[in-house]
Amino acid sequence: MLDAEKSRERLRKSTTVSRRPTARKAAPPVQDRALQTRQDLLDAARRVFARDGFELARLEDIARVAGKTRGALYTHFANKEDLFFALIEEDIARDTEIYVKQLTPESTFEDRVKVISGHLEELLRDRKRMLLYVEFKMYVLRHPTNQKRLAELHAKICREGAARKLDLIPEFSCQTDAERRRTGGNFGATLDGLALNMYFDPEGLTAEDVRRRIQQLVHEQLLRQSIEEEAEALVSK
Amino acid sequence: MLDAEKSRERLRKSTTVSRRPTARKAAPPVQDRALQTRQDLLDAARRVFARDGFELARLEDIARVAGKTRGALYTHFANKEDLFFALIEEDIARDTEIYVKQLTPESTFEDRVKVISGHLEELLRDRKRMLLYVEFKMYVLRHPTNQKRLAELHAKICREGAARKLDLIPEFSCQTDAERRRTGGNFGATLDGLALNMYFDPEGLTAEDVRRRIQQLVHEQLLRQSIEEEAEALVSK
Repeated sequence: MLDAEKSRERLRKSTTVSRRPTARKAAPPVQDRALQTRQDLLDAARRVFARDGFELARLEDIARVAGKTRGALYTHFANKEDLFFALIEEDIARDTEIYVKQLTPESTFEDRVKVISGHLEELLRDRKRMLLYVEFKMYVLRHPTNQKRLAELHAKICREGAARKLDLIPEFSCQTDAERRRTGGNFGATLDGLALNMYFDPEGLTAEDVRRRIQQLVHEQLLRQSIEEEAEALVSK
Repeated sequence: MLDAEKSRERLRKSTTVSRRPTARKAAPPVQDRALQTRQDLLDAARRVFARDGFELARLEDIARVAGKTRGALYTHFANKEDLFFALIEEDIARDTEIYVKQLTPESTFEDRVKVISGHLEELLRDRKRMLLYVEFKMYVLRHPTNQKRLAELHAKICREGAARKLDLIPEFSCQTDAERRRTGGNFGATLDGLALNMYFDPEGLTAEDVRRRIQQLVHEQLLRQSIEEEAEALVSK
């Protein structure tokens, strides 16, 4: 079971247990309050991660910033990694909404390249989010015990999150799971590297450099299947 | 004056001061001993940075691992950033030797692409080095007070280090300082992003993906000048 699923499971259990007959009628339903607590904790986590970095951020501080107890935090999230994955899921859900609005079944290949590229350029402007992604990977590399599990979980969350918009991007919907993982790896490599270096030295990467690299990435990842089919066709001749 | 120059300046001063008439004849020259101490401290810094990460690494621990005092460390390096820049200089000097052996004035464009690409693939296998670069940039982004100064110093050290091999790569030797900084930014963006993601999830980036991205980068950066000249020629028609 995924950590995120586990925390939802805990959420369901906790709301059942605390639904007591003494609850005042005017209070919001327990389920809503639990969801609000979870959201407050997520918002606090974003702030504390941005301030202290993923590695140094403490769950105590996140609970305090959210105005909750450590116990409340553990009702919703098993650990810091679990919190991070919940944030990615939230990000992907928001991204999906943006795509859905801009693409239709009639969109052309050029439309798709334009929408995806524009979205990635926008994403690079979200410094806190990009740095959190980079830091999470750095943290996992320095504590390699669970690396394989976390990398697989990360790939799964990205793949399943992305799957919601696949109808509108036929090039991705044709990919196998392994190909989607590679697409994710290539997107990550380009975005993480651009983010880190454009924030570190803005004079070292111009806006044109960034735009060109992103368009190159999107073209290449959308076209991968056809490139690989052509390569295979050549070999089998 | 560069931090690295400052530390060499301090080194010269310190060796002058400690050259006392009571020194035993059998001991190595003071200058050599000072250089050996500096090298021991650099080697210890690499180990401690790899173990604790750049941010958490403590100068006390580096001195202890090198078997030196904190005072000895401060004779050679002003701070942790100064130590990092000394490590980059050492890395670039080693890289230059590798290039010099593989390129001649008769090398063709294809030879240069091959040698540079091969070297960058090799560099990506040096996990400690790549992660130290990523971490240093993350550290600077989280402590932005000196960001501009450090980014400029970083660009200067990379540019001057690279300048030693420019004779053998005419495409780079034609670049202005600003263009070289952009070349550095593009190299950094590609390498940092590939390193982080291939270490984090080896299944997400295949060896072919890595090779293809690096060759694309090298081609593009060597050809930049001609691409931009063509673009300019088109505009001025």
